[in-house]
Amino acid sequence: MTDQRFWPPRGFAALPAEYADYRTARVVVLPVPYDSTASGWVGAREGPAAIIDASENMELYDIGIGREPYRVGIHTLPELAAHAGAPEAMVNRIEEVVADLLDDGKFVVTLGGEHTVAVGAVRAHAKRTAGLSILALDANADLRDSYMDTPYSHACTLRRALECAPVVQVGLRSAEREEHEFIRERGLPFYSPGEYRAAGPDSIAAQLADDVYITIDLDAFDPSQVAAVGTPEPGGLLWDEVSELLETVARRRRVVGFDVTELTPSLGPKANAQLAAKLTYRLIGLAVPE
Amino acid sequence: MTDQRFWPPRGFAALPAEYADYRTARVVVLPVPYDSTASGWVGAREGPAAIIDASENMELYDIGIGREPYRVGIHTLPELAAHAGAPEAMVNRIEEVVADLLDDGKFVVTLGGEHTVAVGAVRAHAKRTAGLSILALDANADLRDSYMDTPYSHACTLRRALECAPVVQVGLRSAEREEHEFIRERGLPFYSPGEYRAAGPDSIAAQLADDVYITIDLDAFDPSQVAAVGTPEPGGLLWDEVSELLETVARRRRVVGFDVTELTPSLGPKANAQLAAKLTYRLIGLAVPE
Amino acid sequence: MTDQRFWPPRGFAALPAEYADYRTARVVVLPVPYDSTASGWVGAREGPAAIIDASENMELYDIGIGREPYRVGIHTLPELAAHAGAPEAMVNRIEEVVADLLDDGKFVVTLGGEHTVAVGAVRAHAKRTAGLSILALDANADLRDSYMDTPYSHACTLRRALECAPVVQVGLRSAEREEHEFIRERGLPFYSPGEYRAAGPDSIAAQLADDVYITIDLDAFDPSQVAAVGTPEPGGLLWDEVSELLETVARRRRVVGFDVTELTPSLGPKANAQLAAKLTYRLIGLAVPE
Amino acid sequence: MTDQRFWPPRGFAALPAEYADYRTARVVVLPVPYDSTASGWVGAREGPAAIIDASENMELYDIGIGREPYRVGIHTLPELAAHAGAPEAMVNRIEEVVADLLDDGKFVVTLGGEHTVAVGAVRAHAKRTAGLSILALDANADLRDSYMDTPYSHACTLRRALECAPVVQVGLRSAEREEHEFIRERGLPFYSPGEYRAAGPDSIAAQLADDVYITIDLDAFDPSQVAAVGTPEPGGLLWDEVSELLETVARRRRVVGFDVTELTPSLGPKANAQLAAKLTYRLIGLAVPE
Amino acid sequence: MTDQRFWPPRGFAALPAEYADYRTARVVVLPVPYDSTASGWVGAREGPAAIIDASENMELYDIGIGREPYRVGIHTLPELAAHAGAPEAMVNRIEEVVADLLDDGKFVVTLGGEHTVAVGAVRAHAKRTAGLSILALDANADLRDSYMDTPYSHACTLRRALECAPVVQVGLRSAEREEHEFIRERGLPFYSPGEYRAAGPDSIAAQLADDVYITIDLDAFDPSQVAAVGTPEPGGLLWDEVSELLETVARRRRVVGFDVTELTPSLGPKANAQLAAKLTYRLIGLAVPE
Amino acid sequence: MTDQRFWPPRGFAALPAEYADYRTARVVVLPVPYDSTASGWVGAREGPAAIIDASENMELYDIGIGREPYRVGIHTLPELAAHAGAPEAMVNRIEEVVADLLDDGKFVVTLGGEHTVAVGAVRAHAKRTAGLSILALDANADLRDSYMDTPYSHACTLRRALECAPVVQVGLRSAEREEHEFIRERGLPFYSPGEYRAAGPDSIAAQLADDVYITIDLDAFDPSQVAAVGTPEPGGLLWDEVSELLETVARRRRVVGFDVTELTPSLGPKANAQLAAKLTYRLIGLAVPE
Repeated sequence: MTDQRFWPPRGFAALPAEYADYRTARVVVLPVPYDSTASGWVGAREGPAAIIDASENMELYDIGIGREPYRVGIHTLPELAAHAGAPEAMVNRIEEVVADLLDDGKFVVTLGGEHTVAVGAVRAHAKRTAGLSILALDANADLRDSYMDTPYSHACTLRRALECAPVVQVGLRSAEREEHEFIRERGLPFYSPGEYRAAGPDSIAAQLADDVYITIDLDAFDPSQVAAVGTPEPGGLLWDEVSELLETVARRRRVVGFDVTELTPSLGPKANAQLAAKLTYRLIGLAVPE
Repeated sequence: MTDQRFWPPRGFAALPAEYADYRTARVVVLPVPYDSTASGWVGAREGPAAIIDASENMELYDIGIGREPYRVGIHTLPELAAHAGAPEAMVNRIEEVVADLLDDGKFVVTLGGEHTVAVGAVRAHAKRTAGLSILALDANADLRDSYMDTPYSHACTLRRALECAPVVQVGLRSAEREEHEFIRERGLPFYSPGEYRAAGPDSIAAQLADDVYITIDLDAFDPSQVAAVGTPEPGGLLWDEVSELLETVARRRRVVGFDVTELTPSLGPKANAQLAAKLTYRLIGLAVPE
Repeated sequence: MTDQRFWPPRGFAALPAEYADYRTARVVVLPVPYDSTASGWVGAREGPAAIIDASENMELYDIGIGREPYRVGIHTLPELAAHAGAPEAMVNRIEEVVADLLDDGKFVVTLGGEHTVAVGAVRAHAKRTAGLSILALDANADLRDSYMDTPYSHACTLRRALECAPVVQVGLRSAEREEHEFIRERGLPFYSPGEYRAAGPDSIAAQLADDVYITIDLDAFDPSQVAAVGTPEPGGLLWDEVSELLETVARRRRVVGFDVTELTPSLGPKANAQLAAKLTYRLIGLAVPE
Repeated sequence: MTDQRFWPPRGFAALPAEYADYRTARVVVLPVPYDSTASGWVGAREGPAAIIDASENMELYDIGIGREPYRVGIHTLPELAAHAGAPEAMVNRIEEVVADLLDDGKFVVTLGGEHTVAVGAVRAHAKRTAGLSILALDANADLRDSYMDTPYSHACTLRRALECAPVVQVGLRSAEREEHEFIRERGLPFYSPGEYRAAGPDSIAAQLADDVYITIDLDAFDPSQVAAVGTPEPGGLLWDEVSELLETVARRRRVVGFDVTELTPSLGPKANAQLAAKLTYRLIGLAVPE
Repeated sequence: MTDQRFWPPRGFAALPAEYADYRTARVVVLPVPYDSTASGWVGAREGPAAIIDASENMELYDIGIGREPYRVGIHTLPELAAHAGAPEAMVNRIEEVVADLLDDGKFVVTLGGEHTVAVGAVRAHAKRTAGLSILALDANADLRDSYMDTPYSHACTLRRALECAPVVQVGLRSAEREEHEFIRERGLPFYSPGEYRAAGPDSIAAQLADDVYITIDLDAFDPSQVAAVGTPEPGGLLWDEVSELLETVARRRRVVGFDVTELTPSLGPKANAQLAAKLTYRLIGLAVPE
Repeated sequence: MTDQRFWPPRGFAALPAEYADYRTARVVVLPVPYDSTASGWVGAREGPAAIIDASENMELYDIGIGREPYRVGIHTLPELAAHAGAPEAMVNRIEEVVADLLDDGKFVVTLGGEHTVAVGAVRAHAKRTAGLSILALDANADLRDSYMDTPYSHACTLRRALECAPVVQVGLRSAEREEHEFIRERGLPFYSPGEYRAAGPDSIAAQLADDVYITIDLDAFDPSQVAAVGTPEPGGLLWDEVSELLETVARRRRVVGFDVTELTPSLGPKANAQLAAKLTYRLIGLAVPE
């Protein structure tokens, strides 16, 4: 009972049924409306639905990269149920589901929710890809070992990720002193926006292994472009900079999966969700060419 | 690829797949995001999605009527595409789709969008049900013959409906003088909230034929309970009053279909969408018993 | 250069030019966007524009009282300029302008802005109407002699009004102890909503002189019906109650002028401005019959 | 360095220092900004700050009950830190802190946050008061044994409370079928708003023991009066009804402690926070007389 | 009855009466609150009022260009009535009114409303100015031949404009594939922001005829500067870039008219309306020198 | 009764008690919630609380300057009470309080509120520091001698400041013609953003005396980064530019005090308050090194 008098069913990019079928789609979008460890302003759980809603207004052709990313097929799963008992259990659930999808041959796009959801996705990818590198876009170091009584706080995301694979971070402009010392002592390649501008995208790509997982905390962007995050920090990256970085990495390395997290729709204009949707769509186009 | 780790797919009441399948569902929800003739504050096109989103937070058991309305099966269609060329063409599209659904044996719940969408639904039902009565809940007379250069304005809804079947209206408290005179000259049974309280629900039911279509413009409610409408009017009906009226009509007559229209989510709190969702769900329970 | 292809010019009730001309209009609406002494949440300065904007969506026929209030002519003045130097100077400016209008034979409707604006309007009326009574609708006693270093704070409005004419107040449910004692010692006829319900509207009317000025702080309403005020108080009056009171007073006494104040649009839904617009329009209809 | 040129320090009711000192205050307000198990719309963590902010606009004299509740002294604690690792750990932290306060002789007012925070407070009180009764105001049954993988979900609050003491609930209008059956099988005294109106406040008081703990989920109120909750349900209690119930219970029984929970400020107008503040203040006045 | 105690009457730039009189004003502002074909987020109908309201806060001297644009006289018309029957009829109404104004010797500034309103304005200008060029600022190609069942959708605006005169577009970053191919096949001078930065404003001016009509869809701006549009696209133009382009074109060519469209106030901060107001005012200053 | 289970008490940067004590803190934050002379959009009175609330989410280590500004001790005073009687009296109150604090050896950070509050702070500093220079960041000239009937309007702030000490202004892009002529006639060093970019921060520092007071009207920023101001002007300064200017001035001169004013939280996203908080914190770090 669907026909031309109707819009396509709800789902990322509002695709016609033939491009949204799980069986044939190479890409699967996994919405994870989870924000139980949020410490700033809350509401990242509403991020996945807002990104998907906004994506329904996009053109299916991305003129910026000259591609139609949807042609590889993109299936949108229902929202993952939150485990309210403990963030560790939630991370495990995410890892388990992503693992199932990877084992099924899918390219997985995880939509947060708070940045913690990346830990499950990273683990599932790292276990299946030897020598994986992680590229993180983030305003915060996220290197605390534990925060608010749990090692699975959003503030610990990159600390947990580091336990799986080496991390290159871009966008850094907020950290506690212990995190900053941790970065310096270990010589971690964490770049502030200014340092990134000086180094250039090729230099970032050069530090990544052949296979790259990309984790995006949207607060990496300047708040002028994405205000809708729980911990906005002035002095961030701009759309053109992020776009160029992702294009460079995708051209020079193989992107095996990614996540887009921390959109908190109530904290900014709908244009922020639109940016997140287009970012997701473009990165699909870059990572999963026809 | 759905399992217990996921929420059910998006759709009215977030039902498990077995209750949401088109083939077995007795009820079909038709979302019509249309508001091209709006004259007050705009945004009713966002109503259907808001009602459906809110419905996903409801308990499936309605303690108020002691039933589980979902057990008859409720399928949610994708959103009907708007015809931007002319409201008449949109009304025709709605009539055509509702007719298809009725001919397929479904009980149809149309979610607006502006009140105009009711015209298509009313026409489809009236053509298939001889002797149909219409019960309208509305703050406005909606009896203009034409408005803003079209006879298919939201302000003409009940005038168009009257051409299909007799109308009993409850909630009236705004009209232009010509409409008021039209009501008096024709002796139309249009009730202000005060008149309704004096008459009682049984009196309303007594004026309806055996088969009743119910069209609900949410501005019938007092703005304290539903502010999120394009033309709020103080002095409206309360939830308990509407609920009692619908229960009485459903008990004494056969409700063959209904619509819920004019929710404009940006104009009021989310609690308004929640009321609209519960109203829809309860009316399904009343009209389509197991 | 206006014709049928255009909406009428902006102004209360969006009237055709012949009903909005200053020379022939019996009623003049004076918008006073002033809120410099606000102590709660601020923004009442945006009230007059919001009421006028909302009034442009009203039907010109008021079915509730069976009249077309606009037929006596309603002219909307430009906004009064705020005197930022001192509230006393602002009150004087208001008094001066209202006096000019009264001397020109107009019925004056003052739209606030904070309740302080009523002081200027009351003074102008009291000087021209011997034996005037004041009917105040308000949640607060407003009887402080001085507040935040000025006797012209919104919290002193009825204390200042009392110096001009006797005041009957309805809606009282917030006061400091000194105010409460002042009421008891002087035996002021200040009614809580419960006391008003017990007394009834005729009893209120009976305590008023032949000529009545009505000052309305919208927080007299229950916040469910008007949340958009700087100091909302639960347990207030309902639309039907206020409407009945005003109808009774207008029928039994002569209403010589009134104000509607304290709408703070950003604090509630647009339905609140709509209520204020309809309240203003109805009171014009009641006070200035054809 | 405080003097008459300054407002009092931030804290419930913005009290002068002599009434806000921990040592002499008989009442302690404990803000608990926790909402990690929220399943509907999120943001209850912002409730305590919103209630306290709103309370700073209240008159210190409550004309409705003719008392000055602050005179017994009200100290506002800093916000309790959220335990992000598990809701059970958070409940334990709350119990521990409330226990410390009770052992210090304080009357404790817990401000949520989600309703789960009541579990910790109830446990601390029940262990110290033999034969305690609980009066719950709530729209939902909250009787699930576990929800979203934890027995400490907000949806399990009254189930957990029942394990400590008998519960009388008022405001019920949403439950899943299993909860409804649980109520019927056990004969629990859970009242819908309609049943409460029929029974009256004295009947409720009669079912409570001498010592009563009151737990308030603000969704017990009709959404017209409190829209700012995560799971609004139409058909709720009104301010005057709740106020009368609390006055009756306080007059006939001894209230040993209470909580006010689930205010989600972003979901409704600021008037909702104002109602919650005044409710809290009035209940202090009723429960802890001079 | 206006004097120094009042603000000037509402109207673009809040001008004193002598500069706002229709007869002497060289510039006429035509507000067109129309958005019936909107496909993304709706509400552009509220754009004209928001721009005019914001313009009342501007300084009348534009320090950026060292001029006082108002000195040529700017009259603000009442809002054009929407034709709800069909977008084609609305376009015709706009063309007719603009034609009347041009024939009356006025410079016409059309404020949308959706971008469709430009079609009527463009047609009126093109018929009266042989060899007219159009400069379009827009994020989208707007080159569909028909969309949502009408050739007068906002998504067809530049396709319709092309039928009147050649178009140079700046700001392009969203198009469907067919539109992109149409641009390439016809060799249309449509510039992305990056291409514009490479080409420079003089190059754009060089491609325009002596007489230029400028149509501005505010989504040409980066969403960081204008989020309040129905279809925001990241990667847009900045204020300084647009300002420089308009100054260059105005200096080297003759601007015969312009429109500013698609402001949807509810989707972004009021600063967006302020930008639109200042843009309008500056372009008046550039196009209509004393 | 505070311990590790609690967040620190509310106050700038949410500091542990030992860093927030008045006696040992070298820095005192003075919140001044005053906006009585506002002429654009109102609400700057809510700025201080919003900045302080946002500051509680900051890291205490500022990675951008490699310092922990809080280590010098920062005490947050209660909010200064507004004098509603006249802006001059309010300015006097501010001067008096700031003077007391300076005489007590404190470094004073004044948080507005409208820009007028700077006048009191400037006067107190200028009387105690011979040869003081003022650096003003502002979009507007603020050089009117009187506005809206008072010389203490926000629009007169720099005119009043000039009477105390020479002023260098950066960010200018809005002025009335008389102000512009005043600047030119007197040769005042007022820089537009473009002029500032051409001159560079060292040139600004070179024009300042050894001792500098910095007054910041947040509308100096581009509205993309701070929309939440009463009079937003496109074409403003960016975070990195402001940050570099402040670092340069602090390195080359001695900053003796500063204010941050005009944040109007309701007009923009919370990210704007976050920027204001971080700006304040960084400037403390630059001005008051350990």
